[in-house]
Amino acid sequence: MKTALIQQRYTGTKESMREATLQRIAKAAKAGAELVVLQELHQGPYFCQFESTDLFDLAESYEEDVAFWAKTAQKHGVVLVSSLFEKRAPGLYHNTAVVFDKDGSIAGRYRKMHIPDDPGFYEKFYFTPGDLGFTPVDTSVGRLGVLVCWDQWYPEAARLMALAGAQVLIYPTAIGWFDDDPNDEKARQLEAWITVQRGHAVANGLPLIAVNRAGFEKDESGVLKGIRFWGNSFACGPQGEFLARAGEEEEILLVEIDLKRSETVRRWWPFLRDRRIDAYGGLLRRFIDQSGQTTT
Amino acid sequence: MKTALIQQRYTGTKESMREATLQRIAKAAKAGAELVVLQELHQGPYFCQFESTDLFDLAESYEEDVAFWAKTAQKHGVVLVSSLFEKRAPGLYHNTAVVFDKDGSIAGRYRKMHIPDDPGFYEKFYFTPGDLGFTPVDTSVGRLGVLVCWDQWYPEAARLMALAGAQVLIYPTAIGWFDDDPNDEKARQLEAWITVQRGHAVANGLPLIAVNRAGFEKDESGVLKGIRFWGNSFACGPQGEFLARAGEEEEILLVEIDLKRSETVRRWWPFLRDRRIDAYGGLLRRFIDQSGQTTT
Repeated sequence: MKTALIQQRYTGTKESMREATLQRIAKAAKAGAELVVLQELHQGPYFCQFESTDLFDLAESYEEDVAFWAKTAQKHGVVLVSSLFEKRAPGLYHNTAVVFDKDGSIAGRYRKMHIPDDPGFYEKFYFTPGDLGFTPVDTSVGRLGVLVCWDQWYPEAARLMALAGAQVLIYPTAIGWFDDDPNDEKARQLEAWITVQRGHAVANGLPLIAVNRAGFEKDESGVLKGIRFWGNSFACGPQGEFLARAGEEEEILLVEIDLKRSETVRRWWPFLRDRRIDAYGGLLRRFIDQSGQTTT
Repeated sequence: MKTALIQQRYTGTKESMREATLQRIAKAAKAGAELVVLQELHQGPYFCQFESTDLFDLAESYEEDVAFWAKTAQKHGVVLVSSLFEKRAPGLYHNTAVVFDKDGSIAGRYRKMHIPDDPGFYEKFYFTPGDLGFTPVDTSVGRLGVLVCWDQWYPEAARLMALAGAQVLIYPTAIGWFDDDPNDEKARQLEAWITVQRGHAVANGLPLIAVNRAGFEKDESGVLKGIRFWGNSFACGPQGEFLARAGEEEEILLVEIDLKRSETVRRWWPFLRDRRIDAYGGLLRRFIDQSGQTTT
């Protein structure tokens, strides 16, 4: 399965951003890509750097956005993983990955389940936690375990997708550095982000694709200095082995993903066989307090 | 917390093995180690390369083994993580990590929960799956999340220890290569083993220690060629960053583990805050079949 990971910087307007993305999708399709994965909230800026009720306007165009990317998938005959700001009802918004099949039909959606909130990433203000569960999306290229960004830190999310039969884990994402952090801390953060995801690939015997934003985006509220998205989009195989990895700049990463490799690796390392589901009850608790409380 | 990871090759007899280990513990204690972690089944060979009822004899000395290592912990004033073959009743055996405190008392035990079984690693024949759950052991140096070998591939085990308040994850282990495997496959296996564990450290914001065997051990049944244990014992911090890493040969790895670092890292990355425990029910299932079956 030839796959394109499209890593971009924000160009300043939705129109120019869409145009840049369209050109890259055309290029990827021409190069034979059957699956194209875009970064988180790829139509605009990463707008969660501050909280403003006005910014919910960005979700007003959700239906039109869906139609636009559906047409794009159809035009280029690719399975397309988009990442959009969904208005579901007044006051109810989601961070939603919409997956289109080659004919432009909606193959499925995933609403981001784990929502972060820390300085510069005020997502709990904007996004209602997803309610579609961890359900993979069936497409003509395979069953895709689409998750989004913060989910990538949660082994539970990856495992649930694997248990539901996902053949590949896919993460559109938006993560970067604060310029004021020291270099060694920056290195630890980037390496942790890569490592935990490669770990999910290993634990589940599945290939994995992560597509991150590139470039610097200012905090328009002026409170913080902004985020330098670190790029480094990558794909790895079911033993966590790198198949391709981008740098920090804009890039179309083309990579061949062999979905059949999982069968071989899982025969060697049959982790699913030996899970102790009789002893995993505690995973449904918030914390296992030592006082003997059983509150969840 | 100054910690010693003692990576050894099997010396051919239990007596010589114990003697070598004692010397290394003495050396580590002299160098200031407060916590000493030994490799899986450190008193003898990795005997699971073939199935023989005679080999259950190795568990007959369990009580004496416990007394021996208790005395050792006391003599050197260290918290000691041992890995023993436990006879619990006739026909009922476990792969058990016994943790001793500095005064020689038993701080706690962990019976290996996930039991592997593949050519050369016939553990399902020897070890009954543990029934003590994923419960950390309280010691004078902290609450230790002791797990064993095959557990290291399971994010569930690490998470449950973290939820129960473990301050560090610890894995005595026995893993290696078959000489006939090609070099690229060997490299993928070693890297996968390291990556998945570093991933647990990241996902849980906890430091992690893995102590592996070194050296070649023949398959005495003559069916397979034997296992070349790959060493590479290591310790990493709560962002998965390497603190120390051994080579393939015998080594005492001394490393300072800062248990307070987790507090800082978890404030930055509060993964425990955002777990979707309302949506994790599927983790208690064997597989989420697409036919709509709800069998677990």
